[in-house]
Amino acid sequence: MTGSLTVVGLGPGAAELMTPAVSLALSEATDLVGYATYLERVPETKLGQRRHASGNRVEIDRARHALRLAAEGRKVALVSSGDPGVFAMAAAVFEAIETGDTRWRKLDIQVQPGITAMLAAAAHAGAPLGGDFCAISLSDNLKSWATIEQRLEAAAKADFVISFYNPASRARPEQLPRALAFLRQWKAPETVVLFVQAAGTPDMKLTVTTLDRADLSAADMRTLVVVGSSKTRLISRDGAAPWVYTPRSDGTS
Amino acid sequence: MTGSLTVVGLGPGAAELMTPAVSLALSEATDLVGYATYLERVPETKLGQRRHASGNRVEIDRARHALRLAAEGRKVALVSSGDPGVFAMAAAVFEAIETGDTRWRKLDIQVQPGITAMLAAAAHAGAPLGGDFCAISLSDNLKSWATIEQRLEAAAKADFVISFYNPASRARPEQLPRALAFLRQWKAPETVVLFVQAAGTPDMKLTVTTLDRADLSAADMRTLVVVGSSKTRLISRDGAAPWVYTPRSDGTS
Repeated sequence: MTGSLTVVGLGPGAAELMTPAVSLALSEATDLVGYATYLERVPETKLGQRRHASGNRVEIDRARHALRLAAEGRKVALVSSGDPGVFAMAAAVFEAIETGDTRWRKLDIQVQPGITAMLAAAAHAGAPLGGDFCAISLSDNLKSWATIEQRLEAAAKADFVISFYNPASRARPEQLPRALAFLRQWKAPETVVLFVQAAGTPDMKLTVTTLDRADLSAADMRTLVVVGSSKTRLISRDGAAPWVYTPRSDGTS
Repeated sequence: MTGSLTVVGLGPGAAELMTPAVSLALSEATDLVGYATYLERVPETKLGQRRHASGNRVEIDRARHALRLAAEGRKVALVSSGDPGVFAMAAAVFEAIETGDTRWRKLDIQVQPGITAMLAAAAHAGAPLGGDFCAISLSDNLKSWATIEQRLEAAAKADFVISFYNPASRARPEQLPRALAFLRQWKAPETVVLFVQAAGTPDMKLTVTTLDRADLSAADMRTLVVVGSSKTRLISRDGAAPWVYTPRSDGTS
């Protein structure tokens, strides 16, 4: 098989946060596959390049479509927002390969990393990920709520900074309120909470609040939520939002 | 104060993984501050640009040096490897601001994200971060070993994929063996373990092994270690290293 598939991370949105390696992969591809909203971000670079836009559901079908094109000898770029390996398309591709046509294992498959939303959001706020941290998807399409609660409890007890991906959607508006209510059992009310909407885009909006005061109506699927550790703190400034950071030391060394 | 400080993430090493936003910040700076090895990666871009190279210890001193230059009106870029917010320079800068000259709070401070080693390593291996995951620094300069063990136990029990930063150094060769021995109490011997040396550079080397067989002599400070969840798995290929991925589903939904 001579085709190839590169799963690329576009980064959070702004063109200046997309790596040159991803730009190159996009420009060399004969076929671009991806959720329509993400494909729209890719500039037209090449005459005859084909675009295969889809809805944002059923990632495994999009992965299979990309693999079939590659198996036909096409040079395919499958686009993800952020980083393809963080709650995005890369795992779906390997699931499709494992359960699919054995000839797909002979394809040239590459993953090109990108700036994931958590990094762009943190950079905008200051350095909230300065200590040990974890990332949890609140989508329960793929795991039970019991699993999510188990991870929240562990993360709270071990005092990780917690980033939530996919915190809310029209189909699942209750996930984020449930998660924060659950965390209030374990974490102090004054724990710093950040909402970063459209992280890494010109529309980026940062809200700094606390666990007991968080207004959840602000969160949508484009929001990255960071719940601080017990050490996460603010540096106040005149006339500007405070910086938020987590010290590198937890005071126990 | 008219000076500025931008804390930039160079990414893991290869120039094509550095974002255009970081390239721009580097080219616009009057002064570059950073660990000498990282500064060497930055191409000469501007006549008269000053470079302030340091050793890799005592990050807080480097942060203060950068802040003093900015306070003098210089346009400073402070370089980090990977992402500045992940076990790198951004938190040190905010620690320095909080405890330092109150006029530093009036400076224009920006953080420009980069591809952190965990993302480059994961992309090279397949999609090992496909589920929920955490990142733990094994450096105990800044926290006690008891804190590290508490986090390891929590991460194991909640079945996070675990990425270890700073797994070993000449001064602390015992940290990684201790961490993996501790994890063996909680995780199955056949748990997938990855060693990715020099992730995201032309010298990148991937070793795929298991928790009971891991050869720790391969790890140094440039190694990113990933310990899989119970779901992390391999896809075998003829004549090539297996792909490693973690399914998006944990089978409980």
